[in-house]
Amino acid sequence: MSATEHPDTPATPETTDAERRARVTWSHIAEPSDAVALLACAVLGPTSALELAREGSPADLTAALQGQVPSHASDPETGTPPARAARALERWQGRLRTLEIDRVLEDAQRRHVRILVPDDPEWPEHLSDLQGTAPHCLWVQGAGRLDALTGPRTVALVGSRASTPYGEDAATTLGAAFAASGGTVVSGGAYGIDAAAHRGALAADGGATLAVLAGGLDRLYPRGNTQLLERIRAEHVLVSEAPIGTAPTRWRFLARNRLIAALSRVVVVVEAAWRSGALSTARLADDLSRPVGAVPGPITSAASAGCHRLVRERGAVLITDPDDLLDLLPGGPAAGEGSFALQDELDLLTPADHRVLDAVPPRSSIVEDRLAAEIGFTAREVSAALGRLELLGLLERTGDLVRRARPRP
Amino acid sequence: MSATEHPDTPATPETTDAERRARVTWSHIAEPSDAVALLACAVLGPTSALELAREGSPADLTAALQGQVPSHASDPETGTPPARAARALERWQGRLRTLEIDRVLEDAQRRHVRILVPDDPEWPEHLSDLQGTAPHCLWVQGAGRLDALTGPRTVALVGSRASTPYGEDAATTLGAAFAASGGTVVSGGAYGIDAAAHRGALAADGGATLAVLAGGLDRLYPRGNTQLLERIRAEHVLVSEAPIGTAPTRWRFLARNRLIAALSRVVVVVEAAWRSGALSTARLADDLSRPVGAVPGPITSAASAGCHRLVRERGAVLITDPDDLLDLLPGGPAAGEGSFALQDELDLLTPADHRVLDAVPPRSSIVEDRLAAEIGFTAREVSAALGRLELLGLLERTGDLVRRARPRP
Repeated sequence: MSATEHPDTPATPETTDAERRARVTWSHIAEPSDAVALLACAVLGPTSALELAREGSPADLTAALQGQVPSHASDPETGTPPARAARALERWQGRLRTLEIDRVLEDAQRRHVRILVPDDPEWPEHLSDLQGTAPHCLWVQGAGRLDALTGPRTVALVGSRASTPYGEDAATTLGAAFAASGGTVVSGGAYGIDAAAHRGALAADGGATLAVLAGGLDRLYPRGNTQLLERIRAEHVLVSEAPIGTAPTRWRFLARNRLIAALSRVVVVVEAAWRSGALSTARLADDLSRPVGAVPGPITSAASAGCHRLVRERGAVLITDPDDLLDLLPGGPAAGEGSFALQDELDLLTPADHRVLDAVPPRSSIVEDRLAAEIGFTAREVSAALGRLELLGLLERTGDLVRRARPRP
Repeated sequence: MSATEHPDTPATPETTDAERRARVTWSHIAEPSDAVALLACAVLGPTSALELAREGSPADLTAALQGQVPSHASDPETGTPPARAARALERWQGRLRTLEIDRVLEDAQRRHVRILVPDDPEWPEHLSDLQGTAPHCLWVQGAGRLDALTGPRTVALVGSRASTPYGEDAATTLGAAFAASGGTVVSGGAYGIDAAAHRGALAADGGATLAVLAGGLDRLYPRGNTQLLERIRAEHVLVSEAPIGTAPTRWRFLARNRLIAALSRVVVVVEAAWRSGALSTARLADDLSRPVGAVPGPITSAASAGCHRLVRERGAVLITDPDDLLDLLPGGPAAGEGSFALQDELDLLTPADHRVLDAVPPRSSIVEDRLAAEIGFTAREVSAALGRLELLGLLERTGDLVRRARPRP
């Protein structure tokens, strides 16, 4: 039974060699945002879709995709009428003519680039959240394993290339603390926030970090980050959905952002201008139901305006501390719980308690009777307040002497 | 019919002289946080309550307040059993013995201090939101009218005394811009954020500002702000619920914060440490259903930690711009509406549109055919994308030439 006769059979534990080759081929002939290619692969399976790409007519393609709902719902072109199908076939066949898949596979092997497909053990499970826009395959290089590095403690730290020292410092600090806690930092390979986040993670003891590139793994970009990306490759992992040799063009950055969002459990924008690519990553994360955080900054800094906007308009959670990242992870404590007991205790105080507490000098003790005289309370009123304040751990009594409790750690 | 026989009759347009004297008396003999006094005045009216305070027994007071629900629900003492009633009577009678109300009224007149009670035309209408904790009377001094200064455009800008230059700058900028738009800035009289907010408002052309003091109007505090407060008095208004001669003690600051919240339509915390009195003002504002805003700052600044906390834990709105204050006023546009059309338009673009847009050079024009060749699209695909991009105002076409549209104002 040839692959052209019907869609691929349901997933088996091991991907056939034909499907693997078909996926690698698709990653060459279709851009990540090629909605017709994604739809054809989703509906027919990559192998049958490729047969159609090679030998089918526009009418065949239109018929095969008839009535299928595209996952790129924002793209008004996804109806796939014959004219559109013809253009798609023209695009794919143009690239197919020059593609030598055996040479591609040999070249990848020679470079120690692993090409992952969905059934491979190293394939990150939660990429399936991308549904119809999941990559055909992933190109992976480095000492780490992608599946191990994208476990439940995986946070994307993203932001502007045009960062400030403040933002870079925040990215490094958050990256280092999160990596030190056993998590993986995910980011792109750009200057600014991306690089600072990676540097933080690399500086942490045992910290792991993952760079998702827009171009091929042979095109470490930008050049100034070559050393950094080489170090990430040597110690952890570089990932791309673009084949070796692909130039990192701007639309590929936009497509790449959806991988950053999908590979992470939480996306945090550290610094971003009012309009910034990092905001698109945040939107994609939101689409994937990943929590989105944003680091605030001075209101006078244009580099923080996008972060403030995310909080104000899109309900992003304010991130001020490495612990806040942990809170957003699946199973983390909900925001608002945690270490705020002391303030909550103050909320329990009556006005009288506040008055008694205020009258106790900050660094010395006072006799209970003097306290009563001082604030015009009866001895009984003072005693009742002291009882509550002592219970809440705010004051200490030794005989008649009252003093403030030391702040707890 | 004497006032002791039954509660005051329902509000008449003019407060009787007896009630006015009773209210002024209560403001002397009971602290703002005296829950029994507030309850007695609410239940019996100030005149009858005062008769009881002068001549009643603890049993009379307990009987009069029987079954009344105190508005200070957080105060476990508000049951008013006889022992508590006795202590209250003792407190009030102690102060009544030395109070000469005629001298008080003469002194106020001599100092040009106006004593306002609820039916006075200058009484701010929305103080009634305080219900059972509304002040007995207000002591007001200055060239402005309190009712005119607390209209629908009234924003409290509050924050720490231990402010940073960043926070002071934000307070001044927000205060100046808001006052320049015809609004009134409300704050305390403290160093730091309070003073910076007032200074901003005073610097604005026609800007109005209002200082709410914790002590008597003869006790301008802190001394270093005397000139500032004198200028506010000369041009606008100083307010307090404390009689002339009252020392500005710390518990009075806490009580004063509820007046700041009640006199304003929106409360914005500009800078506040993790534990700060300004957070209590925010909580009180929330209790009064006033929107609360907070100005973010660097995550490395302890002076902004309370602001970040308000956003994160209490849903305060991030304030980064004077326009954000206007948005929070009653009738202002909802957050998220407004000037964000351009970003929304970008959201409408298909991946193909993005690719075409990206291929148009930022500062020069390109021929349509070259565009198609550049990105490997057919001429028809490029034309369709150009049509949409032109419609959205992102590109301009002149004959065959395509260029980016100038950013709109």
